[in-house]
Amino acid sequence: VVALRLEDGVLWALDQTRLPWDEVELPLRSAADVAEAIARLSIRGAPLIGVAAGYGLALELARAGAGVLEGAREVLVNARPTAVNLAHAVDRVALSARRVAPGGDVAGAALAEARAIHGEEIAAGEALGRVGADFLAGAGRDLRVLTHCNTGALAAPGRGTALSVIAELAGRGELELVLVAETRPLLQGARLTTYELRRLGIEHELIVDGAAAGLIAAGEVDAVVLGCDRVAANGDVANKVGTYAHALAAAAAGIPFVVAGPCSTIDPRCPSGAGIVIEERSEDEVRRVGAPSGPGGLELALPGTRCRNPAFDITPAKFVTALVTERGVVRPAAGESVLSVLDGVSAGHEKPTGTE
Amino acid sequence: VVALRLEDGVLWALDQTRLPWDEVELPLRSAADVAEAIARLSIRGAPLIGVAAGYGLALELARAGAGVLEGAREVLVNARPTAVNLAHAVDRVALSARRVAPGGDVAGAALAEARAIHGEEIAAGEALGRVGADFLAGAGRDLRVLTHCNTGALAAPGRGTALSVIAELAGRGELELVLVAETRPLLQGARLTTYELRRLGIEHELIVDGAAAGLIAAGEVDAVVLGCDRVAANGDVANKVGTYAHALAAAAAGIPFVVAGPCSTIDPRCPSGAGIVIEERSEDEVRRVGAPSGPGGLELALPGTRCRNPAFDITPAKFVTALVTERGVVRPAAGESVLSVLDGVSAGHEKPTGTE
Repeated sequence: VVALRLEDGVLWALDQTRLPWDEVELPLRSAADVAEAIARLSIRGAPLIGVAAGYGLALELARAGAGVLEGAREVLVNARPTAVNLAHAVDRVALSARRVAPGGDVAGAALAEARAIHGEEIAAGEALGRVGADFLAGAGRDLRVLTHCNTGALAAPGRGTALSVIAELAGRGELELVLVAETRPLLQGARLTTYELRRLGIEHELIVDGAAAGLIAAGEVDAVVLGCDRVAANGDVANKVGTYAHALAAAAAGIPFVVAGPCSTIDPRCPSGAGIVIEERSEDEVRRVGAPSGPGGLELALPGTRCRNPAFDITPAKFVTALVTERGVVRPAAGESVLSVLDGVSAGHEKPTGTE
Repeated sequence: VVALRLEDGVLWALDQTRLPWDEVELPLRSAADVAEAIARLSIRGAPLIGVAAGYGLALELARAGAGVLEGAREVLVNARPTAVNLAHAVDRVALSARRVAPGGDVAGAALAEARAIHGEEIAAGEALGRVGADFLAGAGRDLRVLTHCNTGALAAPGRGTALSVIAELAGRGELELVLVAETRPLLQGARLTTYELRRLGIEHELIVDGAAAGLIAAGEVDAVVLGCDRVAANGDVANKVGTYAHALAAAAAGIPFVVAGPCSTIDPRCPSGAGIVIEERSEDEVRRVGAPSGPGGLELALPGTRCRNPAFDITPAKFVTALVTERGVVRPAAGESVLSVLDGVSAGHEKPTGTE
């Protein structure tokens, strides 16, 4: 799966709102094109959004000249104001453009920086996959892994985060099966993760989110491996709603609960999960089902039924057997500090004990 | 909500496949009519199926005479062979018919027995509601309760099981809110429980199943109250898939996890949850969403995506704060035997400690 590719000055983006049914690439030629694709979720996943926005700014500078820098920056950052990666990437590209000496190749410098960001994200995903596979491998049997939401090439350029770990295990011949939780309300597991696993040729089975705990308790899962949106300084993890129940079930069954994410998701300024505000999204996502902003949705409850729709939940550090980053593994459940990995100190690759 | 009613020799059944959008009653006039309505899930919920089947046999005897007894019995029992209540109710009605002296009113005796079963189920649900409300009330605040699946008048005649407890709390002015887990794959929570709560005028909010654990951890739920399909002799509970995760979250948060069901769901011959076979249902229920056997469903994943679809899961006794029956409360998590209630020994109505 190639979610984004640049060819002859056009950024081609796989339209994720139409997956898995239609594989359609959108040609994006300007900052406005990219911003619109991000806003309507054709491009999603925080790292992927950042890379796309970086290219968007570079494309705009090539198209319309250096004078449009500030306006284009504004358009892109406002596409989804909550995604930090987006502003970060756009600012990096803008800075590289501003540093070009008068008469120099502003657009070229911007494009080079956008490519650099893209390359860094790809490298982080690949490194993280190897680190995670080293941690999980050698269990004495091919692993049956449970995952949640989408953490592959559609969420982060290259191989993704948790799906990079899973793909690496598969490549080493140490994976038996992936159980994919569908991930209501927006069904990223059912729509996107099964699509990616099929393309990768990795055996998988789809389940409803509520089935995970019972299957874990029944001994049908060897490890839970999923991504994260933000990791607090104490090791508490914010991730897609439904994650915490999987963590409780893993702990009760004594199997490893492994969270994969680049170091950029660790937030040293956030002391604990209590400080992470949980975004409440539209009630319509619960009342109906279907591709986000896509046609053909289905109502599940009577109009006017009130809903709660927290988009994330918090898994306390004591349930996180391992946090897998591109720089190494940290074991919050064993009392290791997630900040150690930011200091460049890899906390080692010990095997899971299966007792946390 | 009246799921079943007998009027002028016709059994009117609310067609549950069309709820909550259309409230249509089906006129059932024969054993075959009733069997067909059960098979296509127009009538569902083990106790409700039993009552309907009892009436079905009585209607058939009135319509076609005592000679059809064995044939009609066969048709009804085969409508859904796994539902024990169905065979039990049909056999009771058949026995009452066979006991009529030659020349006596066979159809009248059968109808009287069917009415008796109906009345017993209604009485059990009402008693159970009072017992459960006694157990939960007096917490010092109006309760915010989380429930799963459908356990109201659409599942059992009268007031149902867990929803009977919830309605009783509401009637006493001790209920603030019901959080309803949608209950994928068949969405009995989203479709049926919200419908019943709206009719009862009880405040409620719908959530996806994966959101329950995070909301419980965030202190937004005072008790989990749900039904059961089978209770093993050691107190392990089989219930709709997704139940176990709610139990883990309740235990982690220190709130009561309350299971409501009539004594008939306790199976003394089944020593523990390990002996309960979990039914695996059609993969289509996971791959698609929509009313069962209804039109207008929506595909959620690519055709050919393999799925696992366990219909139930097992919650170990140690997580069951209270089992609420029509004869009283038992506290499996505190080591009390669920068999004690079968001996007519009520285990008392102590308040939950909130520490299990």
